[in-house]
Amino acid sequence: MPDPFAFDLAATDGDARAGVWSTPHGDVRTPAFMPVGTAGSVKGVMPEQLAAIGSSQILANTYHLALRPGADVITDLGGLHAVMSWEGPILTDSGGFQVFSLADLATMTEEGVRFVSHVDGSKLFMRPEDSVDIQAKLGADVMMCLDECPPLPCEPAKMADAVDRTTRWATRCRDRWNELDRLTAGGDPQALFGILQGGVDPAMRARSAEGLLPLDFPGYAIGGLSVGEAPAEMYRTLEATTPLLPREKPRYLMGVGTPADLVNAVMRGVDLFDCVMPTRNGRNGSVFTSGGVLKIKNAVHARDTAPIDAACDCPACRRGGAGAFSRGTLRHLFLAGEMLAPILLSLHNLRFYHRLLADLRAAIERGEAEAFAAAELAKWGAGANVAATNPPPGDPVRTQNGA
Amino acid sequence: MPDPFAFDLAATDGDARAGVWSTPHGDVRTPAFMPVGTAGSVKGVMPEQLAAIGSSQILANTYHLALRPGADVITDLGGLHAVMSWEGPILTDSGGFQVFSLADLATMTEEGVRFVSHVDGSKLFMRPEDSVDIQAKLGADVMMCLDECPPLPCEPAKMADAVDRTTRWATRCRDRWNELDRLTAGGDPQALFGILQGGVDPAMRARSAEGLLPLDFPGYAIGGLSVGEAPAEMYRTLEATTPLLPREKPRYLMGVGTPADLVNAVMRGVDLFDCVMPTRNGRNGSVFTSGGVLKIKNAVHARDTAPIDAACDCPACRRGGAGAFSRGTLRHLFLAGEMLAPILLSLHNLRFYHRLLADLRAAIERGEAEAFAAAELAKWGAGANVAATNPPPGDPVRTQNGA
Repeated sequence: MPDPFAFDLAATDGDARAGVWSTPHGDVRTPAFMPVGTAGSVKGVMPEQLAAIGSSQILANTYHLALRPGADVITDLGGLHAVMSWEGPILTDSGGFQVFSLADLATMTEEGVRFVSHVDGSKLFMRPEDSVDIQAKLGADVMMCLDECPPLPCEPAKMADAVDRTTRWATRCRDRWNELDRLTAGGDPQALFGILQGGVDPAMRARSAEGLLPLDFPGYAIGGLSVGEAPAEMYRTLEATTPLLPREKPRYLMGVGTPADLVNAVMRGVDLFDCVMPTRNGRNGSVFTSGGVLKIKNAVHARDTAPIDAACDCPACRRGGAGAFSRGTLRHLFLAGEMLAPILLSLHNLRFYHRLLADLRAAIERGEAEAFAAAELAKWGAGANVAATNPPPGDPVRTQNGA
Repeated sequence: MPDPFAFDLAATDGDARAGVWSTPHGDVRTPAFMPVGTAGSVKGVMPEQLAAIGSSQILANTYHLALRPGADVITDLGGLHAVMSWEGPILTDSGGFQVFSLADLATMTEEGVRFVSHVDGSKLFMRPEDSVDIQAKLGADVMMCLDECPPLPCEPAKMADAVDRTTRWATRCRDRWNELDRLTAGGDPQALFGILQGGVDPAMRARSAEGLLPLDFPGYAIGGLSVGEAPAEMYRTLEATTPLLPREKPRYLMGVGTPADLVNAVMRGVDLFDCVMPTRNGRNGSVFTSGGVLKIKNAVHARDTAPIDAACDCPACRRGGAGAFSRGTLRHLFLAGEMLAPILLSLHNLRFYHRLLADLRAAIERGEAEAFAAAELAKWGAGANVAATNPPPGDPVRTQNGA
């Protein structure tokens, strides 16, 4: 039978790639950004609004859904596509990142991770096999291996241990995935991606790739970045890592990042991204524009009849035409605590991310990626790495998905 | 020139009326329910979603907007239609109801009302003329007179004073409205409605009508109900009041109410309604269905794959078809604190209200209003007044708009 998870490279330009990632729930034109729906909903955004602004694949969180409402409940409700009211592809992360982001609530042994629920204090023990079982019950198109993601900086010995444990766990995940035999069972097939660790040390990244590539996953994620290191270190790490990965499989940089991060990573051969930044920043009143970051709460916007960005075609800006929400209106709604403000700002930022990558893809197809990236990065600083090591004001938090 | 605020009775059936209320921003087919956008936004709902579920005229709150962001700011932002991104008709209430709902923060004299802002403690003195001026700046299609709305029960002498003051203030509002001469000035014409007071005493209602009818407003509101009296008292009051009002002008029952209230009021000759109930109840997890009230948080819904109401065509229910949100999903989203839950439940409840009145209008046109009302009210109890004196469980709060 044909591979339900084919990845076709439509064009390349230097290291940058324009691809089509196929899933049982439709295609994703890469490079692509996945909005984060931690608990089964991209906060405040209706599924049809997501589709309208160009979302193709969305992400949900295994750890959060396992705790509430529980994987069996999701199954009983028809699976994650039904729960999220989303007909397109869905990816679930494994829970590994929550060991990092909820460190106080997680204890790791070789067997697995013991979580104390951030919701109600209940216990959840998650072995790599459990993570796969839970993700099988959730029913997303793409599952992720349970991994160990150490914070940076990290002692070399500890990093080597994390890399090797991630490889051992990936093997257990793959074995469990094969046992489940979803590809030939009744349900929709699910892909399983491996996750590279190794921090910012090229040798460690190579060690991780060496361990994972023989497992022949249909896609590979680069984890363990955007966890404390400077952006320039992340970009150097990407340069050292993507050449280690199979050319014919999608590459997913987890939990990244700023617009400059996305451009820099695509130029280094990355295809897929997720991050809470566009929605979280939107909920906090910070929006990305073609002219830089804008803080909607600032008093200067009080009587401003201009939209956030007249060049933007999102539901808030509408290119400045009929029905566009002015900066003054958005500021008022934000200060009045009206839900419509975070909704509109989230939609705007997500649309900004999707358009950025769609434009970058078009540039790759034209063979003009380098010029496009340079022009784009100039907006966020004085050049690629400068923009990256100096993130736009107001976006100090570089966060991964989910928590 | 033709009256920009014509009201045409398309059909009557007993006391019930099916009309078309024309405004400079389009027509409203009555009976109609106005969603409440207190601070310039129907909480969590996008304007295009409102239009899609059948909203025609929406309401905003003079008191709240005067305090934040301020009437001049609204003017500078292009007026309320631009701020609300709403091309259809808008009505602003006068602030009079906030004297009742924010009694601790308001002091009334013959000159006007002194408010202490619930937002920042700042002072706002609002004379009847100020209320009209503010509403002129907001630019809604319909303005309301500043009135005195005493809580019930109320001493007869105090009620008589409130009725007479409401008449004197209505005169001052009308005079100010005439001075502004909006009907011939550059801006869109604005209508001004008078508000009857008088509690549940037919003599007092007659006294209020006697004072206000000579002022010849283009529409009349019935205020001072749903402020502590039993529903049956409200219905008796409506029976005594609507016959006092001009047949050829719209009648607006302010801040009412439950589905049973709407049906009972239409059967007694009311044309327009507003109430926070559908949106507030939705935000609290309570939804109206063709089978009664449903509490989405109840554990019984945890694994329920049915939509709220398979007969409903709202964005949450989708008649149970593709993309419908199950009760189990909505319960999960609600308990997880996801914004999408209040958004979807608000849309469902608003659609319920709009469909109820559209169906009732169709019944009026067919001459079957009585039978329709009886069948509808049977769902909420054992008959019209019984349903009304025993509101559906979970809707104990009978609230007016805005606060």
